[in-house]
Amino acid sequence: MIFRQNWQGVRLTDHGEESFPATVPGNIQADYAAAKGFRDVMFADGCKQFEALENDAWEYRARLSCTAGPDERVWFVSLGIDYKYDVFLNGDRIYGYEGIFKPVELDLTDRLTGNDEIRILIYPHPKREGAAPGKREEADRSCKPPVCYGWDWNPRLLISGMWRDAYVETRKSDYIRDSEVSYRLSSDFSRAEVSFAVDCDAECTIDLYDPAGNLLYHGTDKTLTVERPRLWWCAGQGSPDLYRWTVTNPSGMKREGTVGFRRVRLLKNAGATENHGFPKSRYQAPFTMELNGRKIFLKGSNFVNPELFWGQATAERYRKLVDLAADANMNILRLWGGAAVHHPALYEACDERGILVWQEFMLACNDYPDDEHYLAVLESEATAMILALRRHPSVALWCGGNELFNGWSGMTDQSLALRLLNHLCYTLDRDRPFLATSPLEGMGHGGYLFYDSRHGTDVYRCFENAENIAYTEFGVPSISEIKALERIIPPEELKELAPTESWVLHHAFRAWMPESHASLETLQRYFGADGTVEERIAQSDWLQSEGLKFIYEEARRQSPHCSAALNWCFNEPWITAANCSIVRYPDVPKPAYYAVRDALRPALFSAKIAKFDWKAGEIFKAPIWLLNDGPDPVASNAKVFLRIGDREIPLLEWNAAQVGAGTNLEGAQVCCVLPQVETDRFTLEIRSSDPRLNNAYCLQYRNDKKPAAERTMNT
Amino acid sequence: MIFRQNWQGVRLTDHGEESFPATVPGNIQADYAAAKGFRDVMFADGCKQFEALENDAWEYRARLSCTAGPDERVWFVSLGIDYKYDVFLNGDRIYGYEGIFKPVELDLTDRLTGNDEIRILIYPHPKREGAAPGKREEADRSCKPPVCYGWDWNPRLLISGMWRDAYVETRKSDYIRDSEVSYRLSSDFSRAEVSFAVDCDAECTIDLYDPAGNLLYHGTDKTLTVERPRLWWCAGQGSPDLYRWTVTNPSGMKREGTVGFRRVRLLKNAGATENHGFPKSRYQAPFTMELNGRKIFLKGSNFVNPELFWGQATAERYRKLVDLAADANMNILRLWGGAAVHHPALYEACDERGILVWQEFMLACNDYPDDEHYLAVLESEATAMILALRRHPSVALWCGGNELFNGWSGMTDQSLALRLLNHLCYTLDRDRPFLATSPLEGMGHGGYLFYDSRHGTDVYRCFENAENIAYTEFGVPSISEIKALERIIPPEELKELAPTESWVLHHAFRAWMPESHASLETLQRYFGADGTVEERIAQSDWLQSEGLKFIYEEARRQSPHCSAALNWCFNEPWITAANCSIVRYPDVPKPAYYAVRDALRPALFSAKIAKFDWKAGEIFKAPIWLLNDGPDPVASNAKVFLRIGDREIPLLEWNAAQVGAGTNLEGAQVCCVLPQVETDRFTLEIRSSDPRLNNAYCLQYRNDKKPAAERTMNT
Repeated sequence: MIFRQNWQGVRLTDHGEESFPATVPGNIQADYAAAKGFRDVMFADGCKQFEALENDAWEYRARLSCTAGPDERVWFVSLGIDYKYDVFLNGDRIYGYEGIFKPVELDLTDRLTGNDEIRILIYPHPKREGAAPGKREEADRSCKPPVCYGWDWNPRLLISGMWRDAYVETRKSDYIRDSEVSYRLSSDFSRAEVSFAVDCDAECTIDLYDPAGNLLYHGTDKTLTVERPRLWWCAGQGSPDLYRWTVTNPSGMKREGTVGFRRVRLLKNAGATENHGFPKSRYQAPFTMELNGRKIFLKGSNFVNPELFWGQATAERYRKLVDLAADANMNILRLWGGAAVHHPALYEACDERGILVWQEFMLACNDYPDDEHYLAVLESEATAMILALRRHPSVALWCGGNELFNGWSGMTDQSLALRLLNHLCYTLDRDRPFLATSPLEGMGHGGYLFYDSRHGTDVYRCFENAENIAYTEFGVPSISEIKALERIIPPEELKELAPTESWVLHHAFRAWMPESHASLETLQRYFGADGTVEERIAQSDWLQSEGLKFIYEEARRQSPHCSAALNWCFNEPWITAANCSIVRYPDVPKPAYYAVRDALRPALFSAKIAKFDWKAGEIFKAPIWLLNDGPDPVASNAKVFLRIGDREIPLLEWNAAQVGAGTNLEGAQVCCVLPQVETDRFTLEIRSSDPRLNNAYCLQYRNDKKPAAERTMNT
Repeated sequence: MIFRQNWQGVRLTDHGEESFPATVPGNIQADYAAAKGFRDVMFADGCKQFEALENDAWEYRARLSCTAGPDERVWFVSLGIDYKYDVFLNGDRIYGYEGIFKPVELDLTDRLTGNDEIRILIYPHPKREGAAPGKREEADRSCKPPVCYGWDWNPRLLISGMWRDAYVETRKSDYIRDSEVSYRLSSDFSRAEVSFAVDCDAECTIDLYDPAGNLLYHGTDKTLTVERPRLWWCAGQGSPDLYRWTVTNPSGMKREGTVGFRRVRLLKNAGATENHGFPKSRYQAPFTMELNGRKIFLKGSNFVNPELFWGQATAERYRKLVDLAADANMNILRLWGGAAVHHPALYEACDERGILVWQEFMLACNDYPDDEHYLAVLESEATAMILALRRHPSVALWCGGNELFNGWSGMTDQSLALRLLNHLCYTLDRDRPFLATSPLEGMGHGGYLFYDSRHGTDVYRCFENAENIAYTEFGVPSISEIKALERIIPPEELKELAPTESWVLHHAFRAWMPESHASLETLQRYFGADGTVEERIAQSDWLQSEGLKFIYEEARRQSPHCSAALNWCFNEPWITAANCSIVRYPDVPKPAYYAVRDALRPALFSAKIAKFDWKAGEIFKAPIWLLNDGPDPVASNAKVFLRIGDREIPLLEWNAAQVGAGTNLEGAQVCCVLPQVETDRFTLEIRSSDPRLNNAYCLQYRNDKKPAAERTMNT
């Protein structure tokens, strides 16, 4: 039986204590803010109110409340406490830990008096001595999610506390401490040898149900064979079939869960050979996902923390976000290492919707050193993550963290933290691939702009010339819709898109590059020097939609040499003024979300667009492709039209005949001279005999008579 | 007390048994050959006599002979048996193993009758079912050294048996089973915390002596501190100082060994940054060796098995070869994965001479699969290697094996064998770097020709345009001297360098590329269509000497971006007719050895030569460098002369002033028009005020009046 406690929060400073009601799960700083009447964290400079709390210690206190039978023991359970803490019972320290993920379970029985107080002392946030104050490097020897130290889309907001549920539990002697199912799948997938590991002092009964709900097994054997198992497939490739199981002890206590049978491997990419001639180096990293013997193209996005206050992320929010990813025809989410710690609901939803999970450990963009204390904390936290998450069929690969082999991080293949993680994954979960980091050789991160003025390249040029084996981060920013901006930018600042405080704090300027993420220079380049905020929003949505659509479709055209496309990023933890996310906080699709959804359909016609901005009289050329990454062949033809002003000009008819499963076909090329029309845009439209394969691109158009705005903008 | 046994060898075939005297350590096939009067394995087609023995089983048999006191136990000890075997005592199977490296120690006492027979049954060589017969892929799921299956410088010669010593040993109850010393060195190297792990049931006494032989400690403590330890340095950087220790038990039995205090790390190479622009991949592998806080340039060679019959490799041979490497100014040997298993004498010599050891595991040029049986054997063998070799200060890095991430092998970062090796090295020897394989990204293997007709590049062009972070294999072949050829090629074949049987069997033709390793086409290209064998030998020595000299010096010029140069290969296991080795079997330096020795001096003047073949009237240009990879500054000047015919033409005087430790300086450039002289060569000679820095290059010259030989050769 579970007894939730009535927790009181306490802020401990040099000046004494302040007490306030605490919510569990939650974050103690959020509780304090609520009690003290802090302004909305999202509005204007609301997030800065929390800076004054950064170096405080905190406590949770509760008078222990529970009723235990004479044969029961009393446990304190917390599923996760952020970050360094001690647990006290009646003033005695009974436990201490540093970490965020590993649960704690403490048997209190022999210490109870009948009038007991439990206290959790949370130490101040780790900040590495000598690190630049206010920078993420303060987190470079802890497992605290580095994103909390400030990122280009997350304000600096250091939080701690009981972010996962915590309670007092009474347990009988036959309590089931844990139960886990593992299996060995035969190489032809025709048979699964299933093993139940049940951590219980009494014999338990096992029930196993097939995906249709039929009872397959009832009994006490710990190993059994499933013949011809229905396999777990990711979205777009088949059904994510799950078998359900229960383990029941003599007292009637049940644990339940699911198991999905599948095999994942990472294979060499097609054409990822070593350089030619001598001296010869190695070929590129293996990054072609093979699921159940079938090579699949990974289509997905980078997933970040869904809340600033991690304890406020609900199962419903996770479910909604995973549904949005699956509905956008995605089959993978990368749980980015800067915010790698999530709620179980995320994994359950991914299991059920067939979304592969690329699980990173909590390292990002720092040089985590060969430091004994840090390595010990990482070993404990990573072990807890592996043991908790290896049960999920959706979890497809482990990864040390984000961009650790790039100049701004500085780690190498020899870094002990990464060798430790490889060792732990090998020992505890050998059959899941492990990457030291992303990107590895041949993989690509970036760009993150529609137009990159440093290199003079737009999205089209950048990706048509890239030859990466996987695009595991790329982004195009957009500005949030006006009603969202009204929730974060004060009215006087909202009149103009300019680097004033609220716009800057919400990442519209100076978030990464000077103009990120509003990209005002780029908007001016394409659309002229002047524009209202509403116009700028519409322009940025247009660029984000067309930009991401091009990149995803181009990555698919580059298959099988290229095996993956994941944009940066899917969601965001608060309302940003501008960001590369395609779902704005909390879970609202941006216009680009729908463009991505279209580009990720299993099969579609696609035009290889050369650029965004066109002029009357220019020759417009675009090869037409039929893309198919699904498990079935498609047969269709296409008619291609140019729609400009009120004209519809037929350009091409192409019969693609039948295109096999997982195959792309480059077809005919459209070619025409753009006519003189009074408009600022035109649409290339592909209509198919199978309307599910239709496609359309809306591109910028300038009549010769109207001089291009950017001609006056550029030097 | 040790009792050597009188071993009898037995060949087991379908037709019965053949008995013969066996030598331990040794190889059973060599014993059989000796007994049966096989012709010399090296001469003509002598090696082919062993093909008929490939699929046989063998036994060693001995009547057990020893005298044990009443308080003693009787052990059978073998330091290594090749490869899959069972041990029988009086007909009972008491042990079985698959591997080559792991020692076996069996307590026989309770089974002894007083009239005992010990038998070792050796199974036939592993050959993977389905593998192409006679190819190295037969070894792709075993830990048998793949080189024995045939390589481009090792005939196919499958051997097995007790290649290391074996004996019966009587042990008292206080026998010291093992003792090992480990240490933690403070980050400023000022203090070493030393721990003795003594595996003994009685208390032992420890003595520790400093490098000068002074007793530092005598007592029974297992941990002690050495203040201001003298560090172990590799050759050229300091003294390889070793502390000597003994562990003595109450009976007076001693174990002894040495410990060298040093820290090795692999750091990122200078300028090894990720590609510019987006999408961004990772930077190159870290391969700059840091020893005791000092970055050093690795100068060395690839070391292979010193005998065809591994059991015949003596400590003296290993010592001689290591001495030759150290005398050639080398500081590292790569123990190449195809022949990764060596005698302890090699490591002891490397400890004493300051030669760093790059230790590979026994994988090379195959795709070792994720196979449970193979992984179990590899785990056992690799564990034994790590436990045995981690004691040596010379062992500087572990490596999974040779060229595993290249097309001809096919393994990837996800291969479980390599993840297993990383896990074992992390667990058992965390502070030594681990590479999955060589080459990694940025490192280079090859070329292996003076002139590469496929790419139209010579050694000069190939390496001056390369930008690798390390050249860990490169080679130029030469033909063995005539007195060596006489030992392997019958007189009638020796009249002409041509692809007849003995030349082919000894790797002069078709060993790797069609013309390897004699490179007759290349010799004809430079020296004309005709030539006696003696002339071809001299020509090949000239090309190998100048070629290797250029590559080593060029690699040093490319420092610090480039951090290593190791030629392929140092030695050879038998007399080859032609090979890239610089020391011919058994331990005779080739002319190129001396050229390499010159190029690897700590400090020298070096000319960046543009090509080998010059003509009268051509403009000869060469920048002059002062190279210094030593720990001390050098100050010198250089006078550069052209010596041609009997003329000596002064070209340049350059004062390099003082050049710091580990620093190269590019100086002035010589430039002259080559005069008309009746000769076929000229020398560029650099004479320094410090004669140790002198240098000279002997290059080909053709007078205009004499048309170039290759003009008639090339199409």
